[in-house]
This record gives sequence, structure tokens and C-alpha cells, in this order.
Amino acid sequence: MTGPAEPSDHPLGPRDRMVRSAMALICVRGVTGTGLREVVQHADAPRGSLQHYFPEGKEQLVREALALAGRTASRTVRRLQERDAEIRPSDVFAAMVDAWRGWLTETDYALGCPAVATVADAVTVAPGLRAAAADTFDVWQTSVADVLRSAGVPVERAASLAALLLSTLEGAIVMCRARRDLAPLDTVLAELAPLLDAAA
Amino acid sequence: MTGPAEPSDHPLGPRDRMVRSAMALICVRGVTGTGLREVVQHADAPRGSLQHYFPEGKEQLVREALALAGRTASRTVRRLQERDAEIRPSDVFAAMVDAWRGWLTETDYALGCPAVATVADAVTVAPGLRAAAADTFDVWQTSVADVLRSAGVPVERAASLAALLLSTLEGAIVMCRARRDLAPLDTVLAELAPLLDAAA
Repeated sequence: MTGPAEPSDHPLGPRDRMVRSAMALICVRGVTGTGLREVVQHADAPRGSLQHYFPEGKEQLVREALALAGRTASRTVRRLQERDAEIRPSDVFAAMVDAWRGWLTETDYALGCPAVATVADAVTVAPGLRAAAADTFDVWQTSVADVLRSAGVPVERAASLAALLLSTLEGAIVMCRARRDLAPLDTVLAELAPLLDAAA
Repeated sequence: MTGPAEPSDHPLGPRDRMVRSAMALICVRGVTGTGLREVVQHADAPRGSLQHYFPEGKEQLVREALALAGRTASRTVRRLQERDAEIRPSDVFAAMVDAWRGWLTETDYALGCPAVATVADAVTVAPGLRAAAADTFDVWQTSVADVLRSAGVPVERAASLAALLLSTLEGAIVMCRARRDLAPLDTVLAELAPLLDAAA
């Protein structure tokens, strides 16, 4: 696929940069608050490249940003399976919490989950985005369930514990952002760790 | 306080109606997606009444909507204390989940939590709204902790279990809206009920 001429000082092409920029902006301001012009600017992409790469417009761009978020969340948790050491179920949640501790403090609590942001402002406006957010959660939940099984959780319990971990993490991230404090993440990890390890 | 002339077929005055309408619209579309003109229209309030009652503009209106949301959430859970029967800690979470089951199904999954919506799109734009969302969570968490204590949870554990319940509920609501399905709420209630009752 060829596109408009691109600046040479970027490791990624303009299409990938725009998807990443859309994801980054949605994480902070939501879908409604993310303008296409800002995405192009944030991505340092050539004018006109948006229409070229995303002929369906903003919805297509947001769908791809959500798909990228799903893959990123999935990779964060699957990385645990590559470790040599044995993992406990609580390690799975600790890894999810740790990743968010880092993202929240690095961004001064500006960053949230793009799937939550999409549901919060676009669910009634754009059914395609609702479905894309559901897909993001599904991809992520499947990965968490798989890693919980690697950690010894029986198959019949893994999906429901994965749903619990996603729900709890998502809510705790929102509370951390509101309070500018990591305590909600620390609390939910401490409360759920024994429940998780008892399931293995 | 006197205001512009108001229609006679409303049980609440225009000020209260605008706060309620703002809350209702934010629940569905977020803060950025909620226009002041829509609030006035939704509230069937006289033109010009917004400036009269909310001289600080949209931020003041949203702050009051969030305060109303905190009182509503608080009342929903405190109602349990008025029951004659003994309550278990899991009854507290069940009541929170039940209220949201109702709101989600009645609105065809359009409704979400206004504090989550505010954090998702306004946290970096309006520090006053971030603080107002934090207050909403604080008021609600305090009520949940109080009711957990009435249900036998030791004081030193009540606050952290309340934080867990708020986080988990908030995340599960988002997942229910994305999936148009109550399963995430059912799952988190089933997973947390034994943990809660074991704490009493």
C-alpha cells in the first residue's frame, strides 16, 4: 500500500502512527474529545493521509486504535508465560496492576483505558465502536484466562476469574485517575491475591 | 432564590431539573459529548436559566451532577440498613449489582456511571471535575464501608473491601455496556460473594 510522502524521521509509517496517536489521545480525552486534526498533528502525518488510509473516517481509525489496545493488553499479560519461573494466579493480576502503575505515574494520571473511554462516550452514538470495545475486552480476557490456566487455575474457573480481573482493574484505574493516587490499584491487588491463589 | 419563569407541569424546579438532566446525559455520552443546549432542552428549562442558576457555566453544572450521583449511589446502598433482616456483606454487593442490572436493562445498556464518564474524558481538561469525581467516589465508598460494617465486616477491612466493590462494579458496568449483556455483573457478584462473607 502506498500513501502520501512521509517524513523520514519516524520508525513507523504514517498509518501506524495515526492509529497509535488515536489510541493515545482517546486514552486521555475519550472518543468525542479526540479530533481528527489532532490525531494527524500528534502523529506528525501528512495532511490528507487520514482520508487516504482511513476512507471510512473516524470510526475506522478508532476501531483500529481499539484493536491495537487489545493486542497491547494481551501482550502485557502473555509475557508472563515466557518467564522460566513458575507463575501463581496472583502474579497474573500483579503484572496487570504493575503495567498500569507505570502508565499512570509516567503520565501523571492522564492515561486511562481506551476501551473504557469509548464505552463511556460513544456507546450509544456508534454501535460499531461498542462492538470494537467489546472485542478489545474479549481479546484481553481470553489472554488473561489462558495465562491463569498456565498458573494452575482450572479451565472452568479461568474465564470468570479473568472477567473479575478485567472489571476490577478497569474500575481501579478510573479511581486512581480521579484520586491521583495508586492506592485503589494496591488495594484491589491485596484483596484479590488470596482469592486468586486459592483457585489454583 | 428566584429564577426565570418556569413551566408549571414539573414537580422539580428548573435548577434541579438541569442538574438531573446533566447527570442523565453525562451517563450516556460523557462530559465532552453533553452540550449545554441539550441539557436545557432535556430539562425543559427556560432559555437563559442556565446562566442564571450556574453562573460558573458547564463545570459548575457537571460538579453538581456528580454530587447528585454520589448522593444517589450512597442512598442506594444505605437503604439496606433500613431493612429489618440481618444483612451479610455479600448482600451489600448484591444490592449494588441489582441496582445496575435494573438501570442497564431499562436503558438498553445506554447508561453508565457519570463519575467514570467524567474521568474518561475530562480528567486532564478540568481539574475541578477530576476532584468532583473523586468526591463522588469518596461519598459512595464511605457509605459502602459503613454498610459493610453493619454487616459484620471489621472496621480495618471495610474501607478496602468497599474500594474493591466500587472498582469491580465500575469495571463490570463498562463491560456489560460493551457486550450488551449482564454476564459481567453476574460473574463478579458470584466470584466476590464468598470473599465478602468470609470477611464478616
